[in-house]
Amino acid sequence: MAIVGAEKKQAAKPSLDVLHGLVKNDLAAVNRRIIEKMQSPVALIPQLAGHIIAAGGKRLRPMLTLAAARLCGYGEGERHCALAACVEFIHTATLLHDDVVDESLLRRGQESANAVWGNQASVLVGDFLFSRSFELMVEDGSLEVLRILSNASAVIAEGEVLQLVTTNDTGTGEEDYLEVIRCKTATLFAAAAEIGAVVAGRPETEQRALADYGMNLGIAFQLIDDLLDYSALQAQLGKTVGDDFREGKMSLPVVLAFARANDEEREFWTRAMERMEQEEGDLGQAIALLQKHGVLDETAARARDYAVRAKQALAVFADGEIRAAMMDAVDFAVDRAY
Amino acid sequence: MAIVGAEKKQAAKPSLDVLHGLVKNDLAAVNRRIIEKMQSPVALIPQLAGHIIAAGGKRLRPMLTLAAARLCGYGEGERHCALAACVEFIHTATLLHDDVVDESLLRRGQESANAVWGNQASVLVGDFLFSRSFELMVEDGSLEVLRILSNASAVIAEGEVLQLVTTNDTGTGEEDYLEVIRCKTATLFAAAAEIGAVVAGRPETEQRALADYGMNLGIAFQLIDDLLDYSALQAQLGKTVGDDFREGKMSLPVVLAFARANDEEREFWTRAMERMEQEEGDLGQAIALLQKHGVLDETAARARDYAVRAKQALAVFADGEIRAAMMDAVDFAVDRAY
Repeated sequence: MAIVGAEKKQAAKPSLDVLHGLVKNDLAAVNRRIIEKMQSPVALIPQLAGHIIAAGGKRLRPMLTLAAARLCGYGEGERHCALAACVEFIHTATLLHDDVVDESLLRRGQESANAVWGNQASVLVGDFLFSRSFELMVEDGSLEVLRILSNASAVIAEGEVLQLVTTNDTGTGEEDYLEVIRCKTATLFAAAAEIGAVVAGRPETEQRALADYGMNLGIAFQLIDDLLDYSALQAQLGKTVGDDFREGKMSLPVVLAFARANDEEREFWTRAMERMEQEEGDLGQAIALLQKHGVLDETAARARDYAVRAKQALAVFADGEIRAAMMDAVDFAVDRAY
Repeated sequence: MAIVGAEKKQAAKPSLDVLHGLVKNDLAAVNRRIIEKMQSPVALIPQLAGHIIAAGGKRLRPMLTLAAARLCGYGEGERHCALAACVEFIHTATLLHDDVVDESLLRRGQESANAVWGNQASVLVGDFLFSRSFELMVEDGSLEVLRILSNASAVIAEGEVLQLVTTNDTGTGEEDYLEVIRCKTATLFAAAAEIGAVVAGRPETEQRALADYGMNLGIAFQLIDDLLDYSALQAQLGKTVGDDFREGKMSLPVVLAFARANDEEREFWTRAMERMEQEEGDLGQAIALLQKHGVLDETAARARDYAVRAKQALAVFADGEIRAAMMDAVDFAVDRAY
């Protein structure tokens, strides 16, 4: 079977390639639908939305919906494509609002929408995409999908507010941090995968299994993202490093390092991340402290734990190329750290 | 009949009192539901949401849902209250985002939420209320209501973006302006009234009539709001005057005055509202020009036209105290100008 060869090849360096290959046609349909549905007589809306949507990103979340639907045997129709577009709209709306909240001027190596068109337009176009997403769900007509994605949207907003509250607060604990990333990131991964089972009309056990898969994958994914923000590897890839540090965001590496810090180190973290009095060389000092306490490795180990759980969640499904590719996606999310 | 006396009393000075009296119990249920549903384990959310929701406002939009449902003979159950709360959540979310977009530090005479908690929290709590609103609609379970309110939300966002684009643009025409207020204000009035017919299970003619009522009432309401922003009456009531002028918003009075302006006057409007080079005394000069060209009266006359249409839309319903009170509400919206 050709796919076994592909799996073996992937085993060396996990990637999204196999999964991407399996849902390629569906994903093209999703992209067409996104372009079509972001149109508006108000020209600034497709301009701004097109800027952030065209900038790419991996389309990981809509891919989860597509893959989950296929895993559940969904064969006919394009409902999974329509709903995958809804998921990407919600994600894009949160990115637009995130960049306003974080005052980010860059997104995926390009100028952010707020840098080009201002905060006002970014807030409002985010609102538009969000609303449009619900319009498309209503067109699809599944109250269960609407329930899952409206709940996910509220939880995402809660996570974003919680992150805002914990920013610059060195009193943030591990559980607070995990709650933030569960809400702001993993919930949409979970919802994206879960609705694949809903369109396929599969029983609740499979729906729950996919939600579980997405939730654990999302947590692993965000843990690695947070680790990479302090990583030399990320710098080698030409991506910025230290964004979280400069914003005073209490991600797991810092939470762990602060818990283990001596008095002098605590004063460093408090000055740099709570009082936000940052000096030349502070990022290097922060990375040195994270390494000293081994918390980057520990963050990676936690991510691997969640990755294992994500893969275990798929055990209720029969083995096959889609399931294998979805497991590969988990490995990809974690192996970015190495 | 007691209500005839009340109507007569109102005829002298229209108010929302009769309508308010008729839906008082329902409105109390709406308020309880709002408080209950804005709760979140993330304490900042109910704090911030409570600030803007408690600040009051007339609850005009939820009242429209309640009144429309009663007009349509909806008798049992509390669906109309639940959906009226959804309408108020959408409205509140747009207010929170509006204040961020306009950089407003005051709302209803109090500090705005963004003034107290910052733009970031206001954007995110707005997102939360918006999502929560859709969660509540899903609980209600009517896809038709979801269709109407998701569409309204997308149109509101389009209207807000269109307003952003026309701000500081003296080339804005009457039709552009009308499109802005139709989208950003009147569509939610229309949706609020329309869903009253949906919960009552009334035929499309009544649904359309109520949408028509809300749309025309909303346009009239916004025209008067825009007029009042240049009115001595508003100043007497202790409200601020000139907010639109200071932001360079092209509302109908300015659009009409610019169209009739001589060269010198055009230079004034262009300097003050397009180049935003405002000087001491400019607001007084603007009001003088609006009066010279009679455009405040003309704006009021337009509002009266829409008010007539709003009342005519109710002709498909039998006469009665609710219908009379809903007509009174139209007169109230317009007579605020005098």
